[in-house]
Amino acid sequence: MTYNARSGQLLDALREQPPLVQCITNYVAMNVAANVLLAAGASPAMVHAEEEAAEFAGIAGALTVNIGTVSPGWTGGMLAAARAAARAGKPWVLDPVAHFATAYRRGVAADLLALGPTILRGNASEIIALAGGQSSGQGVDSGDPVEQAEASATALAQRHQMVVAVTGATDFVTDGARAARISGGSRLMPQVTALGCSLTCLVGAFAAVEPDAPFEATVAALAMFAVAGERATDGASGPGSFGWRFLDALAALDGAGLAAGSKIEAA
Amino acid sequence: MTYNARSGQLLDALREQPPLVQCITNYVAMNVAANVLLAAGASPAMVHAEEEAAEFAGIAGALTVNIGTVSPGWTGGMLAAARAAARAGKPWVLDPVAHFATAYRRGVAADLLALGPTILRGNASEIIALAGGQSSGQGVDSGDPVEQAEASATALAQRHQMVVAVTGATDFVTDGARAARISGGSRLMPQVTALGCSLTCLVGAFAAVEPDAPFEATVAALAMFAVAGERATDGASGPGSFGWRFLDALAALDGAGLAAGSKIEAA
Amino acid sequence: MTYNARSGQLLDALREQPPLVQCITNYVAMNVAANVLLAAGASPAMVHAEEEAAEFAGIAGALTVNIGTVSPGWTGGMLAAARAAARAGKPWVLDPVAHFATAYRRGVAADLLALGPTILRGNASEIIALAGGQSSGQGVDSGDPVEQAEASATALAQRHQMVVAVTGATDFVTDGARAARISGGSRLMPQVTALGCSLTCLVGAFAAVEPDAPFEATVAALAMFAVAGERATDGASGPGSFGWRFLDALAALDGAGLAAGSKIEAA
Repeated sequence: MTYNARSGQLLDALREQPPLVQCITNYVAMNVAANVLLAAGASPAMVHAEEEAAEFAGIAGALTVNIGTVSPGWTGGMLAAARAAARAGKPWVLDPVAHFATAYRRGVAADLLALGPTILRGNASEIIALAGGQSSGQGVDSGDPVEQAEASATALAQRHQMVVAVTGATDFVTDGARAARISGGSRLMPQVTALGCSLTCLVGAFAAVEPDAPFEATVAALAMFAVAGERATDGASGPGSFGWRFLDALAALDGAGLAAGSKIEAA
Repeated sequence: MTYNARSGQLLDALREQPPLVQCITNYVAMNVAANVLLAAGASPAMVHAEEEAAEFAGIAGALTVNIGTVSPGWTGGMLAAARAAARAGKPWVLDPVAHFATAYRRGVAADLLALGPTILRGNASEIIALAGGQSSGQGVDSGDPVEQAEASATALAQRHQMVVAVTGATDFVTDGARAARISGGSRLMPQVTALGCSLTCLVGAFAAVEPDAPFEATVAALAMFAVAGERATDGASGPGSFGWRFLDALAALDGAGLAAGSKIEAA
Repeated sequence: MTYNARSGQLLDALREQPPLVQCITNYVAMNVAANVLLAAGASPAMVHAEEEAAEFAGIAGALTVNIGTVSPGWTGGMLAAARAAARAGKPWVLDPVAHFATAYRRGVAADLLALGPTILRGNASEIIALAGGQSSGQGVDSGDPVEQAEASATALAQRHQMVVAVTGATDFVTDGARAARISGGSRLMPQVTALGCSLTCLVGAFAAVEPDAPFEATVAALAMFAVAGERATDGASGPGSFGWRFLDALAALDGAGLAAGSKIEAA
């Protein structure tokens, strides 16, 4: 089956049985990530407290962990939930936002990476820096093109036996053996905050649908974002009008539309 | 006076003297709840720290407490504010989000319920579970229709001498003696995150306007949401375009429009 | 050079080299403030944890601190970041949201003010109360017109050797010697939450562009908000449709448009 057909199939399955996705994400992203999941057809739950995060990870179909606004009160819940998801055989996704910016952030990202995420999603600067390279990121924005991060992504995927997704103008996904590039999206997307963080949550939703195929699930999530982003650009006159059109486009997209509209190529 | 006329009267009173509403709510809902209150005409204040929550409850006209993203750092402020509101004779509203999902959450909800909220608002699964029944909720979404929660709502209202609102396709409100059903709204509302949480804050705003009539205040808030939801559906092509149209519809609605447009029936 | 021309020049400079702005702000404002900065052309980073806030302040071009939803877990990061910014010669902006409402909030605002912010931005009630006057604010909303706060603003600017901006229907900015008034904006702006908090972050962005001219930077940021607010009102039918139009208007505005459209007068 082609990646396009598989992506469409996964979206249909997601809509038929909405997965419960536990998102431990940052304060900036919480609302938009929840809306992205609802529009896509999944059921988001923002549950982070150490007192319940692990218990909830046993109920949810997948977990996503994002360190965008991390603080010591949050790391306990992140680590406990990641451990519980792994124990329960549930996929979990790590989003190491700006992990290279400070010593504290580097430590938190390293602790989480050591727990073996199923999937890692980041921008090019984050992936390059996590692989040990020299990135030119500034704050939370990538300073490097995706192409430059492909070797780092492959190295990380092989080293940690996980799927790695580098997102940007054209996305790159690899499990260390296979790889794919997804194009589409919109030049307006970097002007809307937290879309990358929301994509991490959507990757979790697709991974919950097909826990045994995290590579295909990641490709499908990225393809859905790219197709919806392209469609939302029609009629948008700036980042504000793009934002709500993007949610509409996610909700309007079905499996057939995703299969027909995706631009995925094996790399 | 009919419920419709009374609702219109309460909205006019709210607009004339905007109540200050202290909302202790979750991270996902904060922005949209504040925008809902501003559009409706109230003055929201998100004040949660234990160091000031009780003091502020003495200033505000009403308090709302929502456990959506609760953690130990927050419960102290919630409990202190609820006690202070009760002491000052101010109405307070409890929203026990997904309280059945984890042991921690059940404990927090029970502690707050023991303080005697004026009004309780939840979805059907939350109300059924709080009354001791078997719900089929998944995460924060209800798995049960409102009708199935009516007996639970009545039992809770009588047991705790409070108003209970179960919201969904058709809402049900009871104080244990009287009951009403409110219809309207939009099929798009469950696709937008935190609208239920925002409704809890709006219930607080109406309760602040008429502290001695929490049943009527709750009916009015639910009716306002239902009428605005219905109007916002016109021209909406998905959850994104519904979101901002809903805020416009809330702001455009006045007392006469609410009285004319509400679909409230005694139950 | 006129204030108009200078504002346009600063916006062009901001777009040419996007400043990294560290925003420690409240939960309600985080998403919209980040979107405002992105639309304006800056690079926002919401970094608040005490473990990294000071280190990050050394990287960022400017820091903004807003106490809207402050709690003890946050004050350490605020104070450390403000000290680090001052040490590194970076401008930092204080937004003392509703500091008069509770004893806790008064204390936090006083501690931050004692560290010597470069710029202070508040509504009239906040500025009057901070100067020791009697304000009539309720919660986070101003109960006083800007004109009434001009003397307080001048006194504060002189006492603390900082720029003070009072924002409202017509804004007032002073460094204790010079002063300017900026008009424009929209009657819909007070109906959208967190726009004032977002403006504080935008002031930080302009201050990062021109650290040696905080007065001119503040004027430029306020003028940009006022012009975009005015333009966004066209076609808006309420606070919901205003919100996204405002982001579009910020993104569409360039230096020439800002210079031509600003209504700034020396006071």
